[in-house]
Amino acid sequence: MYRPKIKVFDCTIRDGGLINNHDFDFNFVRNVYKALSQSGVDYMEIGYKNSRELFSSSEYGQWKFCDDEEIKRVIDGVESQIKISVMVDVGRVNIDNIKPKKESPVDMIRVAAYVKDIDKAIFMVNSFADKGYETTINIMAISKDMGPELDEALAQIEKESKVDVVYIVDSFGYLYQEPVEYLVKKFKNIIKTKEVGFHGHNNQQLAFANTIEAIIHNANYLDATVYGIGRAAGNCPLELLIGFLKNPKFDIRPILDLISNEFIPLRDKIEWGYIIPYAISGMMNEHPRAAMALRKGKNKENYRQFYESLTNIGIE
Amino acid sequence: MYRPKIKVFDCTIRDGGLINNHDFDFNFVRNVYKALSQSGVDYMEIGYKNSRELFSSSEYGQWKFCDDEEIKRVIDGVESQIKISVMVDVGRVNIDNIKPKKESPVDMIRVAAYVKDIDKAIFMVNSFADKGYETTINIMAISKDMGPELDEALAQIEKESKVDVVYIVDSFGYLYQEPVEYLVKKFKNIIKTKEVGFHGHNNQQLAFANTIEAIIHNANYLDATVYGIGRAAGNCPLELLIGFLKNPKFDIRPILDLISNEFIPLRDKIEWGYIIPYAISGMMNEHPRAAMALRKGKNKENYRQFYESLTNIGIE
Repeated sequence: MYRPKIKVFDCTIRDGGLINNHDFDFNFVRNVYKALSQSGVDYMEIGYKNSRELFSSSEYGQWKFCDDEEIKRVIDGVESQIKISVMVDVGRVNIDNIKPKKESPVDMIRVAAYVKDIDKAIFMVNSFADKGYETTINIMAISKDMGPELDEALAQIEKESKVDVVYIVDSFGYLYQEPVEYLVKKFKNIIKTKEVGFHGHNNQQLAFANTIEAIIHNANYLDATVYGIGRAAGNCPLELLIGFLKNPKFDIRPILDLISNEFIPLRDKIEWGYIIPYAISGMMNEHPRAAMALRKGKNKENYRQFYESLTNIGIE
Repeated sequence: MYRPKIKVFDCTIRDGGLINNHDFDFNFVRNVYKALSQSGVDYMEIGYKNSRELFSSSEYGQWKFCDDEEIKRVIDGVESQIKISVMVDVGRVNIDNIKPKKESPVDMIRVAAYVKDIDKAIFMVNSFADKGYETTINIMAISKDMGPELDEALAQIEKESKVDVVYIVDSFGYLYQEPVEYLVKKFKNIIKTKEVGFHGHNNQQLAFANTIEAIIHNANYLDATVYGIGRAAGNCPLELLIGFLKNPKFDIRPILDLISNEFIPLRDKIEWGYIIPYAISGMMNEHPRAAMALRKGKNKENYRQFYESLTNIGIE
């Protein structure tokens, strides 16, 4: 029997945008919106709400900024129950520019933060909650921060914030099922009045398995992306998650069409997925930035040298 | 602390051979042998020992037959602790053609069998054990056969066979961690005097996670292949497994070199890995043969039609 509380949260355009400077064209984004709506997905995160004062509009595409007017163009005239989310990073958004929910097409604002920034994240989500939005705090790079500071941050979120969901974010694709179980249980234990979410990265082909593990231990908000698109190795593939869940409201077929028509051609132009340097940075619990730099150079298949550079083997 | 009993079992040439009619060239196989030996892998399965009376030597490469002389050429002069395995299918080998172990370069013979063929498999492994080989029984398509016949087969193996290891084989890439836990515990419970092994398929990107799950519940024989090569979606990637295990005898670097030098070019010529029709057949608990046929035709990216053909949606 399925669990009605489970929400499938698509981050295709938002996390995928980290590969192409958020420069998806309008029709692509609208086709994703249509397919997700038809598939019964609960949320679509359409990008970052970054301040245009901090980032150049000539360097980044629309979905780095997610102007409300642009979102309205995407969703206009499409029959849909899906909720729209945008992500903000601590320190990269001007809170005063966020309109009240009732004037915006956005339903949810997610705040991405490291454990050390929890005070700022709580301040931000409370402000967004006061404006009428659903909110989440997504605790990034959690595999580097599983000690007592995490417990303290969770207790503070429980006590001081109006947030709806707190996410475990395996930014480096390092976790496997045992630490996922540990973290979900810890979150559920400390955060009793809010939901728990899971966002995996697929460096070691564990994003889907870790998402299943999070489901088993009662996380209800589950991030995924179409064909696993996302920075570096990408994320939990949405089609696998939809195929796994038993709620009859989900229909995998519009997602399959979307992959056939849009993502197979896209994958020939931009790279994500199971690629050895990303697997190595996952094993090492490291940010993929060094691997991403490697993939842009002429030594992109020199895995041994890359591995040794991360482990310092052979370096005096 | 690592578990010394864990054995890493490579099936690169054997399972990979199912993609290319077992037609790997001699130097490729020798390079795999060298790299596995340097990496501390415990076993290398080099192919099938099929009868030349049943299969045409012009249609299939060397590694469908695995003549002892050919194996000797591969391993000649290479410093190595690795053991050599061959696989046999019930009904496809002439047992009388298998020489005694002491006259052969082969250390282990693995018998692949469905639950219904357990009597034959026991007869075969007992014959091979009497000739001095290590043996396994690999129970294929187990996700279709988890009922009382399985319990009976396991009890019979425990009672009547001289086998060393009994494998759970997720032929269709259908299992996730809960059924893997269920199966490993069942095997351990019934088969008390033998080891348990796990062989995953990667249709749903779960082969590595399922292998970790099998480790957690004390399976000690773990199958994997370089860069995940294998029929259809392929298998658990050896490099991920080596990266995960803590035994200091393992060295990932020769495997990384092998992928750089041999498997990246090979992947441009033959196809395996995360491919949507294989994901669909995994979700459906079906043999990948229909998906493999699809991938050879002009509709290879028509996922919806393929999905509907498996589910009978839209068929009267």
